[in-house]
Amino acid sequence: MPTADNPLLAPIADALPPVERASRMPAGFAAVGTTAGIKVSGRPDFALIVATGGPVPAAAVFTANRFAAAPVRLSRANLRATGGTPATCGYASAVIATSGSANAATGDAGDADQAAIGVAVAAAMGGEPIHVLHLSTGVIGTRLPVNKVAAAVRRVVDEGLEYTDLALGHAAVALRTTDSTTKMASVKAEVPGADGGTVAITVTGIAKGVGMIHPRMATMLSVVLTDATASPATLRELLRSAAAVTWDQLSVDGDTSTNDTVFALASGASGAASADHDTAARSALGSALEAVARDLARQQARDGEGATALITCQVTGAADDADARAVARAVISSSLVKAAVHGKDANWGRIAGAAGNALVAEAAVLEAAGLSPADAAARACQPAAVDPARMRIAIAGHLAYDGPAGGPAGIDKGAAREAMNAEEVLIRIDLGLGHGTGEAFGCPLTEAYVKENSEYTT
Amino acid sequence: MPTADNPLLAPIADALPPVERASRMPAGFAAVGTTAGIKVSGRPDFALIVATGGPVPAAAVFTANRFAAAPVRLSRANLRATGGTPATCGYASAVIATSGSANAATGDAGDADQAAIGVAVAAAMGGEPIHVLHLSTGVIGTRLPVNKVAAAVRRVVDEGLEYTDLALGHAAVALRTTDSTTKMASVKAEVPGADGGTVAITVTGIAKGVGMIHPRMATMLSVVLTDATASPATLRELLRSAAAVTWDQLSVDGDTSTNDTVFALASGASGAASADHDTAARSALGSALEAVARDLARQQARDGEGATALITCQVTGAADDADARAVARAVISSSLVKAAVHGKDANWGRIAGAAGNALVAEAAVLEAAGLSPADAAARACQPAAVDPARMRIAIAGHLAYDGPAGGPAGIDKGAAREAMNAEEVLIRIDLGLGHGTGEAFGCPLTEAYVKENSEYTT
Repeated sequence: MPTADNPLLAPIADALPPVERASRMPAGFAAVGTTAGIKVSGRPDFALIVATGGPVPAAAVFTANRFAAAPVRLSRANLRATGGTPATCGYASAVIATSGSANAATGDAGDADQAAIGVAVAAAMGGEPIHVLHLSTGVIGTRLPVNKVAAAVRRVVDEGLEYTDLALGHAAVALRTTDSTTKMASVKAEVPGADGGTVAITVTGIAKGVGMIHPRMATMLSVVLTDATASPATLRELLRSAAAVTWDQLSVDGDTSTNDTVFALASGASGAASADHDTAARSALGSALEAVARDLARQQARDGEGATALITCQVTGAADDADARAVARAVISSSLVKAAVHGKDANWGRIAGAAGNALVAEAAVLEAAGLSPADAAARACQPAAVDPARMRIAIAGHLAYDGPAGGPAGIDKGAAREAMNAEEVLIRIDLGLGHGTGEAFGCPLTEAYVKENSEYTT
Repeated sequence: MPTADNPLLAPIADALPPVERASRMPAGFAAVGTTAGIKVSGRPDFALIVATGGPVPAAAVFTANRFAAAPVRLSRANLRATGGTPATCGYASAVIATSGSANAATGDAGDADQAAIGVAVAAAMGGEPIHVLHLSTGVIGTRLPVNKVAAAVRRVVDEGLEYTDLALGHAAVALRTTDSTTKMASVKAEVPGADGGTVAITVTGIAKGVGMIHPRMATMLSVVLTDATASPATLRELLRSAAAVTWDQLSVDGDTSTNDTVFALASGASGAASADHDTAARSALGSALEAVARDLARQQARDGEGATALITCQVTGAADDADARAVARAVISSSLVKAAVHGKDANWGRIAGAAGNALVAEAAVLEAAGLSPADAAARACQPAAVDPARMRIAIAGHLAYDGPAGGPAGIDKGAAREAMNAEEVLIRIDLGLGHGTGEAFGCPLTEAYVKENSEYTT
């Protein structure tokens, strides 16, 4: 309901392609999701995704946590061994994902466990362990039951992996830990074919992640598959810049996990022209990756532990995009804002307070978002420009604070409470300083979050 | 219960002087705490503290929030007008504190309100408005009832302020909003007298603060009074360095408020030698300020909204003190660690994960803690050095993780649960990298925090 008088009601224009929440399998991949017996509950805890034609270009974004888990360390080493520069891209023919144990803080024994799993996958598939990428999620400090995982590998390879959408859906189910929903997003696009004409490419991502989520590089587990064509370095660049405006803007609880990883694999099986050389192909692949990442991030925030809604903060009028993203991230990360949204309280003072604390992201994230190394270094962790006298805030479509008009806008708290009773609560901020825009995704802080994280070891 | 085998049980040696939780009034000041009628509850909401001999050296640490409240802006301007460089010290003869309304995000009208209150204080006391410092706390975005506050000023000045400990205690009570306890701390020390011999100095702080507390400069409201002798610049330097290792290491909920302020006023009425020139006097005053600040920070964390205990994280073996403080702060700021402590779950994996994310503080905080401007700029917001293979973690005296011995230490979770059932839960981390030490203070995340912050506008 935007009006000429109140641009705060207008959402940020969205130029991204439409997303379907489906596990559409891109050409050139097969998958399986099943139960290996890691989880005591007996729920699915094992997924294997393979590039059916052998190693394909792969790129990754990993956690910034110094306590990186064994699967993160091994995947990083494998990409370094198969790729060039930067170290986070190379070639891979399989992604193995286990849930129930994070294999983090398990020392040398944990590293050996993960390596043994890679060897088992390579032996069963007939490839090299360095072409296996690893994902794991679950309790920190517990060992993976290697024998059970290796047995599952042999079993699923014997039974045969499937090329179907359903199989990729099963893989998505197996990624889940405390997730209440299965997270998937898919985009189709037309791009120039390698041999002329146009071809359809598919970009499909699956993901998990509901707790220990916070912007520091990647923020949970995800695998994005595409049959588009790109070199490892190009795939990495497109993935990293998509993550900078989506997953890096997602926070559930301010904790960056030890296992956060996003992998993207490009089979090239669509016959598309290479994104390395064809600008139309590059642009379409980049947009599709961003759209998939953004939708997965929204699904992850909505399913945050204990969450009852998605909180989206969209910021316009910032001095630049980095500032806009910083302010959006500060707002959705604020415990007090999150608790207020839970209570459906249009407490704009807490939003103003959070915005006033915003710090621009770290240099690595700024570079990924397109800043030069010098600019990124100069801006990193600096306060975002915020002027109370020029800022305006709207909550769920209700103008709450209008700096240029003197401050408090006399919001109708009852009407705002009604409007906040929704699946998505949109907080809009116009900073009145420039043309920078950005958004971030979070969720309410509820008693259920506390209960879930104090009563059980997760 | 430290043992030679397990130094993790040993707390960081504490060289600070003993603290009494009393409102001992230093010589040269008088105070009053009463009800002005700002709070609808009718509870005390007004405090006035005066330097009885006229303006005395004063120093401040203010919030880093860009949405700084009217009392912060006015106090900053007054110190700038009465002091020199840096702008956060000067001369003051009165501190007026109101609670119930923060007078934040109230625009020009809010600034005018606060100025009118300063004029009322100066008129009643017979001084200048620029010598009045302002504190306010409460709901953001509501106006202060200036007439009620001005009437209270006239009434208390007519009735007379008292030099007594009880009067300072009443002022401490009036600072409270959702605080469940009155926070005060006092240290006595012997220092060289200005005219030879030794004299006793008193440093007493009162404080409030239970929510919207996070390290960014100061982190709540506090007034520290002393009858020691120091110039504004020296007082500021000692206050800032004390805050860097105490209040800057305190987090309740990750939100830095719009009103955070600490004032220190030094009457010189003890007859002590000046801390500007006498190293013994300087050292004693610095230690006393740090001891008072540390104890107030601990009281504030213990009384965090919904908190059931104090969480202290002490870090040794860091590459340097800045890293140690960063790791300690990351641990006590983690929602997952806070929820685990609430559940008395010795979940060391979450502690390891939080430690692995630690980022060193901003440049201004590092400078306050003693780093050179160049070193501070180079270190600011950089990851703290953490090596899982060298790190050890103990929770409430129980060794949980021992990197050098291979990782998980086989903690007895039942015994640890018993030990965590205490007023203070001590998390000890030795990083095994160097000689840096640091500590931080926080509190459990509970359902009561969520309830308190979602059901009511605060």
